[in-house]
Amino acid sequence: MAKNQLNIGMVGYGFMGRAHSNAFRKAGNFFPLDYDIVLKAACARSADKAQAFADNWGYESIETDWRKLIERKDIDVIDIASPNDTHKEIALAAAAAGKMILCEKPLGRNATESEEMVAAVEAAGVKNMVWYNYRRVPAVTMAKQLVEEGRLGRIFHYRAKFLQDWTINADLPQGGAALWRLDVDVAGSGVTGDLLAHCIDTAMWLNGPIVEVSAMTETFVKERMHNLTGKVEKVGIDDASIFMARFANGSLATFEATRYARGHKALYTLEMNGEKASLFWDLHDLHRLQYFDHADEGKLRAWRNIHVSDGDQPYMKNWWVPGLQIGYEHSFVHQVADFVTGLGEGTTPSPTFREALQTDYVTDAVLKSARERNWQPVKQS
Amino acid sequence: MAKNQLNIGMVGYGFMGRAHSNAFRKAGNFFPLDYDIVLKAACARSADKAQAFADNWGYESIETDWRKLIERKDIDVIDIASPNDTHKEIALAAAAAGKMILCEKPLGRNATESEEMVAAVEAAGVKNMVWYNYRRVPAVTMAKQLVEEGRLGRIFHYRAKFLQDWTINADLPQGGAALWRLDVDVAGSGVTGDLLAHCIDTAMWLNGPIVEVSAMTETFVKERMHNLTGKVEKVGIDDASIFMARFANGSLATFEATRYARGHKALYTLEMNGEKASLFWDLHDLHRLQYFDHADEGKLRAWRNIHVSDGDQPYMKNWWVPGLQIGYEHSFVHQVADFVTGLGEGTTPSPTFREALQTDYVTDAVLKSARERNWQPVKQS
Amino acid sequence: MAKNQLNIGMVGYGFMGRAHSNAFRKAGNFFPLDYDIVLKAACARSADKAQAFADNWGYESIETDWRKLIERKDIDVIDIASPNDTHKEIALAAAAAGKMILCEKPLGRNATESEEMVAAVEAAGVKNMVWYNYRRVPAVTMAKQLVEEGRLGRIFHYRAKFLQDWTINADLPQGGAALWRLDVDVAGSGVTGDLLAHCIDTAMWLNGPIVEVSAMTETFVKERMHNLTGKVEKVGIDDASIFMARFANGSLATFEATRYARGHKALYTLEMNGEKASLFWDLHDLHRLQYFDHADEGKLRAWRNIHVSDGDQPYMKNWWVPGLQIGYEHSFVHQVADFVTGLGEGTTPSPTFREALQTDYVTDAVLKSARERNWQPVKQS
Amino acid sequence: MAKNQLNIGMVGYGFMGRAHSNAFRKAGNFFPLDYDIVLKAACARSADKAQAFADNWGYESIETDWRKLIERKDIDVIDIASPNDTHKEIALAAAAAGKMILCEKPLGRNATESEEMVAAVEAAGVKNMVWYNYRRVPAVTMAKQLVEEGRLGRIFHYRAKFLQDWTINADLPQGGAALWRLDVDVAGSGVTGDLLAHCIDTAMWLNGPIVEVSAMTETFVKERMHNLTGKVEKVGIDDASIFMARFANGSLATFEATRYARGHKALYTLEMNGEKASLFWDLHDLHRLQYFDHADEGKLRAWRNIHVSDGDQPYMKNWWVPGLQIGYEHSFVHQVADFVTGLGEGTTPSPTFREALQTDYVTDAVLKSARERNWQPVKQS
Repeated sequence: MAKNQLNIGMVGYGFMGRAHSNAFRKAGNFFPLDYDIVLKAACARSADKAQAFADNWGYESIETDWRKLIERKDIDVIDIASPNDTHKEIALAAAAAGKMILCEKPLGRNATESEEMVAAVEAAGVKNMVWYNYRRVPAVTMAKQLVEEGRLGRIFHYRAKFLQDWTINADLPQGGAALWRLDVDVAGSGVTGDLLAHCIDTAMWLNGPIVEVSAMTETFVKERMHNLTGKVEKVGIDDASIFMARFANGSLATFEATRYARGHKALYTLEMNGEKASLFWDLHDLHRLQYFDHADEGKLRAWRNIHVSDGDQPYMKNWWVPGLQIGYEHSFVHQVADFVTGLGEGTTPSPTFREALQTDYVTDAVLKSARERNWQPVKQS
Repeated sequence: MAKNQLNIGMVGYGFMGRAHSNAFRKAGNFFPLDYDIVLKAACARSADKAQAFADNWGYESIETDWRKLIERKDIDVIDIASPNDTHKEIALAAAAAGKMILCEKPLGRNATESEEMVAAVEAAGVKNMVWYNYRRVPAVTMAKQLVEEGRLGRIFHYRAKFLQDWTINADLPQGGAALWRLDVDVAGSGVTGDLLAHCIDTAMWLNGPIVEVSAMTETFVKERMHNLTGKVEKVGIDDASIFMARFANGSLATFEATRYARGHKALYTLEMNGEKASLFWDLHDLHRLQYFDHADEGKLRAWRNIHVSDGDQPYMKNWWVPGLQIGYEHSFVHQVADFVTGLGEGTTPSPTFREALQTDYVTDAVLKSARERNWQPVKQS
Repeated sequence: MAKNQLNIGMVGYGFMGRAHSNAFRKAGNFFPLDYDIVLKAACARSADKAQAFADNWGYESIETDWRKLIERKDIDVIDIASPNDTHKEIALAAAAAGKMILCEKPLGRNATESEEMVAAVEAAGVKNMVWYNYRRVPAVTMAKQLVEEGRLGRIFHYRAKFLQDWTINADLPQGGAALWRLDVDVAGSGVTGDLLAHCIDTAMWLNGPIVEVSAMTETFVKERMHNLTGKVEKVGIDDASIFMARFANGSLATFEATRYARGHKALYTLEMNGEKASLFWDLHDLHRLQYFDHADEGKLRAWRNIHVSDGDQPYMKNWWVPGLQIGYEHSFVHQVADFVTGLGEGTTPSPTFREALQTDYVTDAVLKSARERNWQPVKQS
Repeated sequence: MAKNQLNIGMVGYGFMGRAHSNAFRKAGNFFPLDYDIVLKAACARSADKAQAFADNWGYESIETDWRKLIERKDIDVIDIASPNDTHKEIALAAAAAGKMILCEKPLGRNATESEEMVAAVEAAGVKNMVWYNYRRVPAVTMAKQLVEEGRLGRIFHYRAKFLQDWTINADLPQGGAALWRLDVDVAGSGVTGDLLAHCIDTAMWLNGPIVEVSAMTETFVKERMHNLTGKVEKVGIDDASIFMARFANGSLATFEATRYARGHKALYTLEMNGEKASLFWDLHDLHRLQYFDHADEGKLRAWRNIHVSDGDQPYMKNWWVPGLQIGYEHSFVHQVADFVTGLGEGTTPSPTFREALQTDYVTDAVLKSARERNWQPVKQS
């Protein structure tokens, strides 16, 4: 029986363009989907780059103007994998055209942009999802299960950090191509929107709403050569961003992100301490979940180092055999599989644009708190 | 410019059929190849199973008789991913037909079979390779680099083990479908050919020839219901296999494989101790390599826990960004990429059938030593 | 040649009384000291308890009034190992009597008390030291060496936390005997003075002055039965205390302490991220130091897991042989050895009362910041 | 009430002399003993060395001839901490004099010597014990408890190794003082008696009798300068010793010891795999026990990393508080405490000379197997 097709129109060809394309290609090989995912068109301003990307991934056609891509009748889904400053405009147009929309995170450069995007997709009634991929690392998904099963009990503490070290070199320029994340006009913020946003999304998914924050940020290298102007210019992004928070459930939290933590490439860690149990996860060993259960017999009570590779653990029965780990890219495959499965079932897998907006309310409050040096309440969506 | 096509004919649809198919589909997305890999035909005795497998992975056609597959002019490569007892016959026919051959490990059920297979491919002059995939886990490939760069100096010790626990339950039957690995007629041996073969292949690649062995084996569960006969029958395979060895370079070794090590799913570990440095690797955290360099300053001398995810480490510049790990399946992708790259360059990537035969000489010596309870020399190819 | 005697008068017989007594007894066996340390007298209000303690540790005599102990001519050193609310009064009297003073941490219940104590010992010109023992865990001492050798370069981040879980049970009473740490009148504060004080002392030793803090505290269990009154009473201590900080060197920090982190018994961890190198330490594996040096060759760059047990590492040549670890109690032995060695050399080993006062300035600022919900500058001594 | 005295006469002043003396001094501080342990006399051929040692540890007197020490009426216990070639003669004389005897391991240089020693103490009816200290590392003691409680079920595999790297340097001489372990005449054998003996003692304690062995040994550096003769002489010891074994319970084992494993200082590891559970221990983190229980719920089944520092774990209620680790030396303290407790109770704590003899039967079989290149049965005591 022939399946329905789901035609993808991809905007962007960078790191995330690759990660999404790989996920679109693989999801149907490992998960039973009701739709055939078709890589219909890849879009980039440069025709050469678009064509090279399309050839590499098997996109059937290219566009050099995302407006044209949106106009095409043969496109069902617009995937926004271009820099942050393009998200809003593309999303608004795609929603108006009735397309389903997948958008890279953060949703907008700030909550104001994101509010417009949410309004647009909700008014248009189109399916929408944001690529907060870490929710679908099996170990993190299992953490969510454990929380929902009530195994942790009352939560006292939440801790998350995302540590990198790739911008310590003061000679690294800002802006353009792979370095747009250092250009505040394009990125909106520094590590707050890039890294903390991931931590916040997972945190609220696992532990509920964040009520208030107190933050500090720092830009260690104050000026960098700008690739687009050729001049040394003030750096507008935050290099490091730290905040304390209270959740609605009464738990206390610390969050930290930086690109100045020598020795850490992409160390996203999270920990929850509950009355009955605790858990810990670390992106550098993403196939493991640490778990401590106080109900265990006293002398044998200990942190369990769970190798999340068994069929009874989330997503894993669709991959290999116990003991054989999967990696980073698979979180995107799972998100595609869940999205497509949701289509068939008429459900809307999270995180939606609205959920992602809530993360932006937190990051906005973090940046405001850092500027004003005080506690800030977090707007609730 | 259109690339040449490389047309794959796949025999088998099980665990390894999936792993290879995934690798064929992904290699060109991540590595610049001169050929387009085309999944031309999938072959299984059951037409339904062949079709389901073909649909899942995008094979263009199916066959239900591997002889027909070999006869097809539009097939360039025969990939043997069926149980061990079929390897020889298929390989001989494919060689006679002038096809390139990729064969799952172990090559034959014993060295006698493997010798025939080597003779066949060498007589026919066809490209051939065996899927000892662990050589191409980036951390293991880096171990090879370190050895070749002379960083370890004279080697004193080699240690490898491959521990599983999935057959402890005495109620597990033997034979048929997913349980052919417990049927000695199909598998040839137990953990010796299944697990130790991997350890031996990597060991000789890293540390050179094994000269002599002294082994012990055990079958803990002596009888199991046989799925093919419906009767309780004697178990012919070895459940555990342990041997001591001497390498040609004078180093001493211990090897061990078992399916009765409670708590270990697929714990393949290897360690080398050299005069100047040591290294350690563990399949359960396959993206890491432990390395100790005696040349380091005394008080800071320590095992380094290398997260193999940087662009200057083997294969990794083709994947994501530093800190983001890949998994088990990628070792197969690398093997495909190397094989296809070799085609363009006219080189023959290892391990060839001949190299795999040498592993069988070792496993044969191991089994003989265990039977005769003495030291056995290893035949050298 | 007979050595001079150094006569100890111990006040207290609890956990710290034991830790100090053990250190006094062992220091001379492992370190070449110019003095014979003599356990002269143990003091407790209960004669029975004092006598039992003296018998156990070999104290020659007992006192039941610390004023009598201080009056004795045959006592050189008063060691204050009694609860926090007694520190000031005893220290002032001991200083007036010209005794050397060793005092458990925190110095006073708050900086006001500590200022009086500093004034007293400085006016009297008596040797003084505070038992911030973690400085002398060999791995921590080595961290200090690495920092002083300039190996880390400019520091960007400091992180410390001290996590416990022993007061989660709401039925645990407060006050009296082993539970005085939950009684705010005796302890002065909760985890801030008990646990964070350790983190702060080490932090300033390694990374210099803390300039300003923003804190939050929480008391999860608001009321507990009070052992001294027999009534359920409001809990006055902080159960958890978290703060962000800026150091004078421009680095950013997070600090956290809690007794509600299920699964952690005494998890004191610290981490420093510098431009050139990073280091990490963990009390649960106190014999190890993690170190990352960016100067290492690219593909081998990694965190080194240093087993601090070699003779070229701090204090270790006086213990066993490489590979054999020491434990918690040895940090106290090292402090005694350094103190006595300092006597012979006429130097004053840190931390002195004055240095410990600076820690109290930070904890006072933390508590004030948590109350007032704003940033607080830290008074500098 | 005054306790009885237990007067110790110590022979030897090296590494083990220190370890034992420390244990004698500390045991009574931490464990409630019915005897006061008195360091009565230290014995060494050099009066200067004996006096220095006595001064350091508080021995009341010295002897320069162990025969004189044994003759003294005021000595209850002779502790033999001198090199292996002295064990037998001293033990025989001490037994004849009716002294209790504590002897460093291995008991004799070979089983023939050990048999004489066993006969002597048993004929004399004197208390005797051998310093196989690792049994009393709390994590190892807990492993014993778990085995005895039947938690592991039928045992399939035992693995132990003891890896060091201190003799790789070919310029290291043999013989005399600290290097007697490289002199076969003094030591009896190399790593077999020094390191494997520890592994074997623990193994039989945990897993029962060893029935047969097949071994290989190697001397990597064939000649070394001899400190006693001043000449380069053939090295008689084994540098590395590896063996396979079968236990009486049907389990299979591998054992390995070497002083040529670069990067390992004293890495004694042991692992048991049972039908129901597995456990693992590592001397480099001796305060931890890894435990896997198959009865755990499927998705949460994992290795537990137990921090052995709680009061409900062996020996630990006598030390500090949960989370605070002890070290190597404490295993000796526990052995003293158990020995003295046994005196009061009239029991004989293991391992006795007879139990240690059984270890020598295994090491003798290992050395014979390596020479003859065949399987050797193990003599049972």
